[in-house]
Amino acid sequence: MKRVIKVLEDSLPREVVESPFLDIVSEILRLNEDPNVQGLALDLPESLYSSMVLNAVKPEKDVDGLSSVNLGRLVHGDVYDCLVPPTVCAVMELLEDVGGKKVLLVGARGAEGAALQSVLRCEGATVLSCHWKSPQLQSELGHADAVVFGSTKPDDVPVSWVKPGATIIHCNMVKNMERWIQSQQHRKWDLHCLKLQPLSPVPSDIEISRAQSPKAVDVLAKEIGLLTDEIEIYGQTKAKVRLSLLERLKDQPDGKYVLVAGITPTPLGEGKSTVTVGLVQALTAHLNINSFACLRQPSQGPTFGVKGGAAGGGYAQVIPMEEFNLHLTGDIHAITAANNLLAAAIDARILHENTQSDKSLYNRLVPVVNGMRGFSPIQLARLRRLGISKTDPETLTEEEISRFVRLDIDPSTITWQRVVDTNDRFLRKITVGQANTEKGFVRQAQFDIAVASEIMAILALTTSLQDMKERLGKMVVANDQKGEPVTAEDLGVTGALAVLMKDAIKPTLMQTLEGTPVFVHAGPFANIAHGNSSVLADKIALKLVGENGFVVTEAGFGADIGMEKFFNIKCRASGLVPSVVVLVATVRALKMHGGGPNVTAGAPLKKEYTEENLQLVADGCCNLQKQIQITQLFGVPVVVALNVFKTDSPAEVDLVCKIAKESGAFDAVPCNHWSAGGRGAIKLAQAVEKAANQKNSFKYLYSLELPIVEKIRIIAQKVYGAQDIELSPVAQSQVDRYTRQGFGNLPICMAKTHLSLSHQPERKGVPTGFILPISEVRASIGAGFIYPLVGTMSTMPGLPTRPCFYDIDLDPITEQVKGLF
Amino acid sequence: MKRVIKVLEDSLPREVVESPFLDIVSEILRLNEDPNVQGLALDLPESLYSSMVLNAVKPEKDVDGLSSVNLGRLVHGDVYDCLVPPTVCAVMELLEDVGGKKVLLVGARGAEGAALQSVLRCEGATVLSCHWKSPQLQSELGHADAVVFGSTKPDDVPVSWVKPGATIIHCNMVKNMERWIQSQQHRKWDLHCLKLQPLSPVPSDIEISRAQSPKAVDVLAKEIGLLTDEIEIYGQTKAKVRLSLLERLKDQPDGKYVLVAGITPTPLGEGKSTVTVGLVQALTAHLNINSFACLRQPSQGPTFGVKGGAAGGGYAQVIPMEEFNLHLTGDIHAITAANNLLAAAIDARILHENTQSDKSLYNRLVPVVNGMRGFSPIQLARLRRLGISKTDPETLTEEEISRFVRLDIDPSTITWQRVVDTNDRFLRKITVGQANTEKGFVRQAQFDIAVASEIMAILALTTSLQDMKERLGKMVVANDQKGEPVTAEDLGVTGALAVLMKDAIKPTLMQTLEGTPVFVHAGPFANIAHGNSSVLADKIALKLVGENGFVVTEAGFGADIGMEKFFNIKCRASGLVPSVVVLVATVRALKMHGGGPNVTAGAPLKKEYTEENLQLVADGCCNLQKQIQITQLFGVPVVVALNVFKTDSPAEVDLVCKIAKESGAFDAVPCNHWSAGGRGAIKLAQAVEKAANQKNSFKYLYSLELPIVEKIRIIAQKVYGAQDIELSPVAQSQVDRYTRQGFGNLPICMAKTHLSLSHQPERKGVPTGFILPISEVRASIGAGFIYPLVGTMSTMPGLPTRPCFYDIDLDPITEQVKGLF
Repeated sequence: MKRVIKVLEDSLPREVVESPFLDIVSEILRLNEDPNVQGLALDLPESLYSSMVLNAVKPEKDVDGLSSVNLGRLVHGDVYDCLVPPTVCAVMELLEDVGGKKVLLVGARGAEGAALQSVLRCEGATVLSCHWKSPQLQSELGHADAVVFGSTKPDDVPVSWVKPGATIIHCNMVKNMERWIQSQQHRKWDLHCLKLQPLSPVPSDIEISRAQSPKAVDVLAKEIGLLTDEIEIYGQTKAKVRLSLLERLKDQPDGKYVLVAGITPTPLGEGKSTVTVGLVQALTAHLNINSFACLRQPSQGPTFGVKGGAAGGGYAQVIPMEEFNLHLTGDIHAITAANNLLAAAIDARILHENTQSDKSLYNRLVPVVNGMRGFSPIQLARLRRLGISKTDPETLTEEEISRFVRLDIDPSTITWQRVVDTNDRFLRKITVGQANTEKGFVRQAQFDIAVASEIMAILALTTSLQDMKERLGKMVVANDQKGEPVTAEDLGVTGALAVLMKDAIKPTLMQTLEGTPVFVHAGPFANIAHGNSSVLADKIALKLVGENGFVVTEAGFGADIGMEKFFNIKCRASGLVPSVVVLVATVRALKMHGGGPNVTAGAPLKKEYTEENLQLVADGCCNLQKQIQITQLFGVPVVVALNVFKTDSPAEVDLVCKIAKESGAFDAVPCNHWSAGGRGAIKLAQAVEKAANQKNSFKYLYSLELPIVEKIRIIAQKVYGAQDIELSPVAQSQVDRYTRQGFGNLPICMAKTHLSLSHQPERKGVPTGFILPISEVRASIGAGFIYPLVGTMSTMPGLPTRPCFYDIDLDPITEQVKGLF
Repeated sequence: MKRVIKVLEDSLPREVVESPFLDIVSEILRLNEDPNVQGLALDLPESLYSSMVLNAVKPEKDVDGLSSVNLGRLVHGDVYDCLVPPTVCAVMELLEDVGGKKVLLVGARGAEGAALQSVLRCEGATVLSCHWKSPQLQSELGHADAVVFGSTKPDDVPVSWVKPGATIIHCNMVKNMERWIQSQQHRKWDLHCLKLQPLSPVPSDIEISRAQSPKAVDVLAKEIGLLTDEIEIYGQTKAKVRLSLLERLKDQPDGKYVLVAGITPTPLGEGKSTVTVGLVQALTAHLNINSFACLRQPSQGPTFGVKGGAAGGGYAQVIPMEEFNLHLTGDIHAITAANNLLAAAIDARILHENTQSDKSLYNRLVPVVNGMRGFSPIQLARLRRLGISKTDPETLTEEEISRFVRLDIDPSTITWQRVVDTNDRFLRKITVGQANTEKGFVRQAQFDIAVASEIMAILALTTSLQDMKERLGKMVVANDQKGEPVTAEDLGVTGALAVLMKDAIKPTLMQTLEGTPVFVHAGPFANIAHGNSSVLADKIALKLVGENGFVVTEAGFGADIGMEKFFNIKCRASGLVPSVVVLVATVRALKMHGGGPNVTAGAPLKKEYTEENLQLVADGCCNLQKQIQITQLFGVPVVVALNVFKTDSPAEVDLVCKIAKESGAFDAVPCNHWSAGGRGAIKLAQAVEKAANQKNSFKYLYSLELPIVEKIRIIAQKVYGAQDIELSPVAQSQVDRYTRQGFGNLPICMAKTHLSLSHQPERKGVPTGFILPISEVRASIGAGFIYPLVGTMSTMPGLPTRPCFYDIDLDPITEQVKGLF
């Protein structure tokens, strides 16, 4: 009888080579089910050993031990004799004719051992199998005509135990696999950086972006160690990265984790995104250190409303910037679709419940299909939540049916709003349901900008597809008439939302102007949500850069808001520990804090800001000092990055750096990335690298177990410098309700102005003695935080009289976008 | 002095090979600007001669004549001696030492001739150049030591004119290029079809879809002759195709153009999409004829609302069907974004005009920026429309300023609605602007489903980026207080809309279950718009299939609606001439027309439909006969495709085919593609191929010059069989207004029920003697049609009590979608 192991070689037809994975996988899947094939060995080029291919092999047929690979349990030790796959076939060749011989397998584990046994028996051998630790091992070794060591031979098993003249094969399959997997792990990148030749004066952002030809994204992906089946390309310059990478590299140590935060800004912004991009350009293109920037995806609303991109600027940008600022890979559109499906489901459900009897609702919700009636899985889950353990629709009592079919939503408690990714101020307050078909069930509602959707906050905080699905199901959309929360899961829509979000969960890979990698993923509103890009992008990037690499991400607004949320909310969700905080300051903002005149968007800057004024700078450094102190509350070293403008005098720059260092910063350096690219941020990069090796005693600011009000008070006093907080009666009752509903242990996401440490935007510097008023307290249960409102927060921007779309155009011949920033 | 021609070879580093075009192009661009390089020749593998590469070469440096290629002016003739590129280098090698020799170039055109001259002179030759028609030619030929014929030598130039012993080089560069271009033209595809092994009973659509592994889309693209830089890949199974292909293949003859239409359907639909897909599977996978299916992209609303995919069904599907039915490549999301930006701009503009003086509006619309004040191009265009030829903002009179800044929109005339791609019935009628910030400017409005947006209709009818931009600008959104139309262009938003739609204009390539190509592009609502997929997809597909290939597309609803609009609106926009109409019929629908009981979605079919009943079939064929006659009005041969259900008896099937042929159909054949795939539609494919060779006297039904009412009457009488039409007073005044506004010459897009030839859905068969009531007449000026409403048309579906999202789920481990159809 002949061998029954199929060896899958790379002799597939030419089409297959073009896109090998799908074809190989489908061939494996076919062979898995083929009863005539008892085992499956792979003989493919190394590049084809992707996780998709490995996972496809059925464990029972797995000759190479591919499917059982578990990095955590790999045996380390000496290699005696490594056979390349296909192991079984190679063993058979080495053994030559085994008919009538006695073959002993030692330590040939699981599937591969079984396959080898089966082949040997087919060839007529007598096969014995033995553990390394077996007391019979020595005796068995003395009798066998051939011995196959299926894993690394321990030192306490001397080769002399084997019968003289017997064939010995050291067949270290595990070691082989380990070696292969090691080759897939992080290594120093061999990155082809793009050269920059900065012009002076610095051209517009889109001109700079367009002047640089990005690398093809598949080239970039390969350079940073991504396997072909771990990316999904979207055109030439964007690719989604699959989460399977986290499983492949799970034993790989993380790189260093750097947060870019800022002092209290002027309304013009002080350049955190450009610092983030400039820093990675410096690290990778100039210091040859692996690094990744992780940025937020911007809303399209402001892109067409008020000027201001989010891709960085000048010579520290993500390119192509128009792709970054437009549809990108469709994540925000997916969020809009999911958000609005849930919104439509809420109102439709209220209508149907209000216009039908229990029986009629039940007949429709659990219909007879082809003579059968059954609950769908999501309906069974709801029954279980209601404490009804029945599974046969015919056996529910009338009371049970009523509880099952009626969510009994109190329309006045609906907190789930519809969204559009457009600045549409006329949707801030609307009345819906006015068509006759809705039978008079009108109610007041609103649209928010899409990035304010709780689904965006979930995307930013989730850690896996499973986790995302659970969070989506847990989202509370309203209360029922008894005051109990009604969730997306109750509405039966969890699975559909997950389906709509299945691609959005994958971070999008792009590149900086100097060809270094960037992830763009999630962009939750920084006031009602936490304003940080995604946990998943950070996690993947930390694996890709490797132990000595850097991942740089940013927090929206000033450090008092964005950084505080980054630590207490995002790091809690991810379990990641930051290594360094980069605190961005500008002479302009410091002068404002020192008592300089108002800074307003659109108006020319006063002379205080364009001429040297050391007194204003010195006075304003109080804000920088306070933000440094806030950072130190969390036990992370801080490097101050002074984003230099051309009007800043050397004395001003020196003064800021001096005061920053005196105030406890590990270092403080001026940066010129905007005009010079990564070269202008080399000193910053060096300072960050040094700071990352400092002692780090990262800690959260508060324990989740504290009462909601206590957690709010800690943030207000320790971070903002408030004397105390004051809750409105509404806010107090909301706190009481969330606590009663079991949501008291969530972290806090403060919704406060970013223009002052206090709640009053006009109070610059370091305000003291104020009482922070909490007008309302809301909750994003799926995202997992409580958000107190300090004053009113707009969740829908408007279009000005002259929106920037007046300048935006498309050249129909070159297909180039014009006038975008 | 040495040669100064740079030869760009494919010896670029490995990264470049991974994604060659960008790197090669950037190298070319660099060499273009290098003053030390006087010419540039390419020596690349054929596959790298993409249009992007060709266009990159600067004409002055173009040695191969690549940049001057113009298909329309290629010289045809004999090839004497073809040199492969790099031509100049090869010539130099053949000539060996030219120092001191006299070299004559004959017919060496433009750039390549200049480059050759320059090299020869560098090498020390005396170079003369001469035209073919020059009277000196014979004399020059007699004196040269070497002659280079730079293009095909005409017969009237005998080789004997050349001096004996001289070197002759026939260097047919043009011919070379022509040959290369020919190789890029259509050829018989070498398509690797996917094998089907249909199961019985037929599994669910998603099970069938998932059981088949699609080819990688880049493999498919290559098989059908697309160049690498003509596609933009979106993951493994979808790619957008760039419109540049139309320019490359503009001299390529079109294939045959087949429309799939249907008889008046039951509410269950009669399978036009499955026939479309089955037909191309049969043509390409079984008859080895190039073919393409062009389908509409479905709305996500119904996907999560009421079951029913649009990817075909059974063994005639587009795969992966979940991608087809979900976000696809984001086109509908782009439409939503563009539509809603325009909507937001309308309301915001009204608010700003109502709350500001002329001066204040002007200062904001034309602000001083860095001391300069200027109109943007779109503002200058508006000034020209207003008859103001000034370009300096400071010179406008107060009256001119007032006219410029005030669109003076009459809110009661706004016809532009917001959209979402969700079945959200509560948005059918709403009140917007109720927040305090909108200062009381509330108004009643509505949301439509996204596919009802005029921008979707434009996407379906446009022929180029330039054309799309013009149509977007022309969209009328309201009237001003004087009754004049206000357009998107007036609002300054044309360019921004074009930018949002720049990727959506590219058709998406997918594949059928048997691996044949499919375009999915645009899906305008079939009642208020024309319900056909895009002109651009059809045009590209007609080039790709080549002269003997077939492009099959479908028209929504029955032939009286979808086909009539296909001919009178879509074919008019495209200029394309259809070859064959396939008219889909089912025994079920015919029985209904013959007097069978009501057919309702969700309810079990009555026994008349599951048992043989020849009388009902015979009686119902009147509808089939009428639809055949309608097709004949347009002069196109018709093949009836009887979509066979398993309950149909052989006698019923025979009867339908017999009557169809007697009624004037070219042929009538039963089809079993749903259960058997392409194999079940082979007879249909053969009949269609024969019909396509019939005489074709295609004509439109009406002239555009006729008055609107006359055009409506022609459709009502000739197509629907109405006795006459009757316009409501509102409709009549609308007709008058559109006529006055200059829109009277547009084609007509009837909004009528598809469930009857008449306006009354319950009237089956062939109703006669009815008066068609026109309640309203609206216009989509950008899309380019007038749409009269016959009764009310819902533009926003609702969610039922149990939407199908109850069954939809995502497996978080396998990432597979479950429960989708």
